[in-house]
Amino acid sequence: MTTEAFQDSYPDDVSHCYGCGRLNPHGLQIKSYWEGEEAVCRYRPQPYHTAIPGYVYGGLIASLIDCHSTGTASAAARRAEVFDSEAHASTRFLTASLHVTYLKPTPIDETLEVRAVIKEIKGRKVVVASRLIAAGQVCATGEVVAVQVPEHLMPR
Amino acid sequence: MTTEAFQDSYPDDVSHCYGCGRLNPHGLQIKSYWEGEEAVCRYRPQPYHTAIPGYVYGGLIASLIDCHSTGTASAAARRAEVFDSEAHASTRFLTASLHVTYLKPTPIDETLEVRAVIKEIKGRKVVVASRLIAAGQVCATGEVVAVQVPEHLMPR
Repeated sequence: MTTEAFQDSYPDDVSHCYGCGRLNPHGLQIKSYWEGEEAVCRYRPQPYHTAIPGYVYGGLIASLIDCHSTGTASAAARRAEVFDSEAHASTRFLTASLHVTYLKPTPIDETLEVRAVIKEIKGRKVVVASRLIAAGQVCATGEVVAVQVPEHLMPR
Repeated sequence: MTTEAFQDSYPDDVSHCYGCGRLNPHGLQIKSYWEGEEAVCRYRPQPYHTAIPGYVYGGLIASLIDCHSTGTASAAARRAEVFDSEAHASTRFLTASLHVTYLKPTPIDETLEVRAVIKEIKGRKVVVASRLIAAGQVCATGEVVAVQVPEHLMPR
């Protein structure tokens, strides 16, 4: 397990994402790490992240899966040496497609764990599959197609 | 066009959802209305709802599509008289599956419009398709499978 979160390697000018930007004080500031072949993110919902009473809001679950998956895509591309220099080590990915299946209501008074694996790396595209676990139960699954942010969208 | 939002008819004890609960002061408090056969939700992102600079965070887009779709499912079931009395008029739906396709980056300095149509109503299940529009462009599409909240999950 590495000690630096994937998101901590993003350059400052792309570190304001509401889900994972370390420089967004209003945001979720999620952190993702390798644990062997899986990338793991743990997040404790706030009481106001509720849906119906006692359960986590589905939009938060989608947000965690989204940002954890794009972070994992970036880290996986880096690990696979898709990028040819350290200058590209922190290349950002955006989400082309997000699919979440909600298997059961997710209890709000638990630390949520999202565990992701790489399904495919092909060119600028990375496909990431994930499970969201609470209290030992898989409550949701996700599949994200992440694409490297095109140069023209990056801040200058 | 009706003047009461779908979400304003939810009973108090299921009105704390982070996305659409009128009683959640931390939440998005989205509002959905019929406009003919389409249900429409308009939302102005906050500056901190950003992804990379200038564009909306994908998790917010997923959240808007999620809550607008479950609200539309509830309103559609009501309109179709699936429920047999006014007591059930505000029955809540939860999300079984959420699929968002991000077609292009969504500009953050625009009012976002989500337009939803019912694809299917069958038993306790409603399938809702939607488009997210900003500055006249469809930036994302969504498909949500919504299911009526089972009695045992409702607050007592």
